Amino acid sequence: MEEMADARDPIEELITSFNELNSSTIEELDEEPSPLEFMRFVARNTPFVIRNGAKDWVATKTWSAQYLQEALKGHHVNVAVTPFGNADAPTVHSDGAHAGGEHVFAKPHEEDQPFENFIDYLTNQELDPSFSGSEVRYAQTQNDNLRHEYVSLFAQTLKSIPFARIALQKEPDAINMWIGNSRSVTALHRDNYENIYVQIAGQKHFVLLPPLCQPCINEQELRPASYVRRGDQLVLDMEDGDSVPFATWDPDRPEANSTKYSALVSPMRVTLDPGDMLYLPAMWYHKVSQSCSPEGVCIAVNYWYDMDFSGPLYPLTSFVRSMNGRIA
Amino acid sequence: MEEMADARDPIEELITSFNELNSSTIEELDEEPSPLEFMRFVARNTPFVIRNGAKDWVATKTWSAQYLQEALKGHHVNVAVTPFGNADAPTVHSDGAHAGGEHVFAKPHEEDQPFENFIDYLTNQELDPSFSGSEVRYAQTQNDNLRHEYVSLFAQTLKSIPFARIALQKEPDAINMWIGNSRSVTALHRDNYENIYVQIAGQKHFVLLPPLCQPCINEQELRPASYVRRGDQLVLDMEDGDSVPFATWDPDRPEANSTKYSALVSPMRVTLDPGDMLYLPAMWYHKVSQSCSPEGVCIAVNYWYDMDFSGPLYPLTSFVRSMNGRIA
Repeated sequence: MEEMADARDPIEELITSFNELNSSTIEELDEEPSPLEFMRFVARNTPFVIRNGAKDWVATKTWSAQYLQEALKGHHVNVAVTPFGNADAPTVHSDGAHAGGEHVFAKPHEEDQPFENFIDYLTNQELDPSFSGSEVRYAQTQNDNLRHEYVSLFAQTLKSIPFARIALQKEPDAINMWIGNSRSVTALHRDNYENIYVQIAGQKHFVLLPPLCQPCINEQELRPASYVRRGDQLVLDMEDGDSVPFATWDPDRPEANSTKYSALVSPMRVTLDPGDMLYLPAMWYHKVSQSCSPEGVCIAVNYWYDMDFSGPLYPLTSFVRSMNGRIA
Repeated sequence: MEEMADARDPIEELITSFNELNSSTIEELDEEPSPLEFMRFVARNTPFVIRNGAKDWVATKTWSAQYLQEALKGHHVNVAVTPFGNADAPTVHSDGAHAGGEHVFAKPHEEDQPFENFIDYLTNQELDPSFSGSEVRYAQTQNDNLRHEYVSLFAQTLKSIPFARIALQKEPDAINMWIGNSRSVTALHRDNYENIYVQIAGQKHFVLLPPLCQPCINEQELRPASYVRRGDQLVLDMEDGDSVPFATWDPDRPEANSTKYSALVSPMRVTLDPGDMLYLPAMWYHKVSQSCSPEGVCIAVNYWYDMDFSGPLYPLTSFVRSMNGRIA
């Protein structure tokens, strides 16, 4: 027993040694990497940002709220509606016989809205102090919407990111458009994709944590719930589906919902300005908040490339998760 | 207790899921990869072999026992001498008050020998049934000997492996010459280097295990011992130094010294013929045995490039080792 007490907790050792060997400051490039240079980052599963990497894109030069309203006049788009900008976020269920006070996984109410109205809502809410709407709207379907719902704009971006296409030898699995305002926040989560994130208008503020920090993020099995409109209220209805394992620790409120390992993590923070490109490696946790352009919108697109599940990283990351909670 | 018993052992899960996602058959290339192609293998920490990748090297075309005896006439070289071809290998100490029956880490007796005699010994032992010498000799110093002890031959190899130099952006940390016969075996171990192994004469037979198989290889803390000549005997003397953590499981004798995880591993096996090049990724366990050319020698060179300790792989690999033995 004495000896075991002296030995450091292996998870503590894991996170500490990662921190010693890796910077928590993101690497900044001032031009596109070659495919080989990119592959070195993929090999290290390490983020970087290319400042002004997309400054010459037509999208970066032309997409304003007004331009998009003209371009998509008459279109309806899918909008995620929530009371607090908490689409797909752990949320304390404040009422209801079953779930009062419980953290649930809150999915947004989704509805089609005329694109012009959607943009007016975003910008007025952002800029007009007398605006009375409180619900938060966000176009964030993550279902390859730039090649479907927004396909008329697709030609003003790139079909693929050349260095990623050549290095990874694949086309993007999904290309997503994100349009919102500063009220929306994407809660800390991770995706099994190599991700190239391109800022078009406004700013995105990323907080990034490496995959092996799973023991820091207080993953809990959350019962799913969805917002529905009931009268002029958005009400959270519990769903019958399987629970969703989800991070409940917020790196911006580090005292709340922490685990004994949360304090060990060194979050990497980066803000994307218009034209910046971020490489967000597969399985990195990310929380994303946003600021608006002077027009009152925040617009971004991202390219998801299937990650490579071969090699040791995916099984090792799963192993950390299995071990978390088993250490005496 | 019931629930814990139902859950699979996380280490078993780790090794099994790695096996499901990765082939245990080595990838074979028929020409050199580009630096980018090589970097994809580095990113996946996955071995490959290039058949005939070094067939045009002057070394491959000219290094025979006879040629080397001419080239190094009058030179003395460092030779590792052991009774069983067990240099740097776990060995049962058969006598001695302190260590009878104990597995120790057996270092060879090292001595300088005239190169011509050394080669005569190797080839006669290999080919002459009436040869009476039983001790095993192996030139295997692994101290950058091709750029020092054997520097007169260095120009007949490459200063660096082009695809590795460009991809890894570094020169080799060490280039090693290996000259022996079929009596020598290199015991299962791992190195913190990216390794390019080039077969010149004879064959090498590799058994390879990925880094996350640490729980399979029955690592034990072995007390160090060195062979010394005492009369015409080679005797193992215990040393005072620190114990050496070393694999005691042998994938070619899988029943002996096994752990409860050893049976899960799927060893990757590859034989190098003259002119073949092997990429042995950092931290892969390898056991190496050898066959001789018709002349009775086995000759190889290898290039060690410092591995990148940044990224998640090194700390995760250390984590597996820390966790092994802690799972109830």
